[in-house]
Amino acid sequence: MTKYHAVRDQLLDRLEEMASGEQLPPERDLAVELGVSRMTLRRAIDELVARGAVRRRHGSGVFALGPKLDQALMASSFTADMRARGLRPGARTLSFDVGPVGARIRSRLKLAEYDDAAQVTRLRLADDEPIALEELHVPRALVPDLAAADLEDQSFYDLLLARCGIVVARSVQTIEPTVVDAQEAADLDVPVHSPALLFERTSWSADDQPVEFVRSVYRGDRYKIRTELTAPGTEEAS
Amino acid sequence: MTKYHAVRDQLLDRLEEMASGEQLPPERDLAVELGVSRMTLRRAIDELVARGAVRRRHGSGVFALGPKLDQALMASSFTADMRARGLRPGARTLSFDVGPVGARIRSRLKLAEYDDAAQVTRLRLADDEPIALEELHVPRALVPDLAAADLEDQSFYDLLLARCGIVVARSVQTIEPTVVDAQEAADLDVPVHSPALLFERTSWSADDQPVEFVRSVYRGDRYKIRTELTAPGTEEAS
Repeated sequence: MTKYHAVRDQLLDRLEEMASGEQLPPERDLAVELGVSRMTLRRAIDELVARGAVRRRHGSGVFALGPKLDQALMASSFTADMRARGLRPGARTLSFDVGPVGARIRSRLKLAEYDDAAQVTRLRLADDEPIALEELHVPRALVPDLAAADLEDQSFYDLLLARCGIVVARSVQTIEPTVVDAQEAADLDVPVHSPALLFERTSWSADDQPVEFVRSVYRGDRYKIRTELTAPGTEEAS
Repeated sequence: MTKYHAVRDQLLDRLEEMASGEQLPPERDLAVELGVSRMTLRRAIDELVARGAVRRRHGSGVFALGPKLDQALMASSFTADMRARGLRPGARTLSFDVGPVGARIRSRLKLAEYDDAAQVTRLRLADDEPIALEELHVPRALVPDLAAADLEDQSFYDLLLARCGIVVARSVQTIEPTVVDAQEAADLDVPVHSPALLFERTSWSADDQPVEFVRSVYRGDRYKIRTELTAPGTEEAS
């Protein structure tokens, strides 16, 4: 393990004990304490900034971010997930359009070339803090009267059930790492090129009709996925 | 949706049809084809490069990466996962140390302050291509004779079973987005600050003894997670 990696791990140890918004000691003191050069320390801190593990405010120092929202991977909406965590879910609609979509989304929603989709961009909030940007695409024919305001105070799944009697039966979701662009950074209130998780999800009704394609960007500094794995053979019946 | 986002989606549409290593048309032609300025096009391509969705080679152009390895989230080792995908798993040991570890890893492995751990850094390969960097930490007392060469040709779980009769019963794993540092970039053969997935996993034996703490960095340009979600109530018995 290089000296630089050792310093990184010592900083991660220390950050684990720190509260959100707490400040790291000045570079000079920290370098002495860890027994490394200021250059090595600065390199390790720069990497932690790039990774979104700490936040640098220019002219004032480097700050801990506090624990991330631990998200178990499950078949439920953002709304249900945040409620399960004791947080108040919220949504702010940033854009609402109806029109044709590109080939990639068209094939996922099984739309013909001139079929319309409703495209809703929402900022998803937890206790009023922005957590994710979500682009929802819905075949227009499925919910012809869907309007921008419909999704401010209820989940899309609740709306589908209440208005159309449709239950979302299954989804396929992929998860990839990404970095946010300038627009996403402004919406999510993080620095440009901060690490983020990109979720892409296609969902189907019980009769195998595609009902949504969702592309969500989750802040990497506030959100992580947690899974519990049980080895085959030792799994408990449930 | 901004013009820039529309261009990004059109590029993603096109990339989906392209083979790995195939080159995008020259900027001038592509801008005409998409009906946007070269500045808007370049901004969209720059973002795709930053995200690791395409690779730029200076002086020669921008290239598609081909489909990523689709990884289902399951309780199995890298070795088993790659075999299930028809790929040949491999490992190259980069470092092997025995000694004390930091507070963070110590608490996860329930070690006392002066207990030693074996720390193995391995490059994980699929068909000889580097996919992940893995730092494995094992309580020294658990496998006192663990040596660097032991993990070149077998999984740690197979070794634990064969040598110590220990079965890994359960793990808790977190997944976060990150970007690679200079050393990780060199080992994984990707540009510095490429997006990556950071996995941290702690595993326990059937009698609740911690057997490993693993920190893995997976290339975001070659690897993604795929999950299939079934709504509660429609789940099939299994």
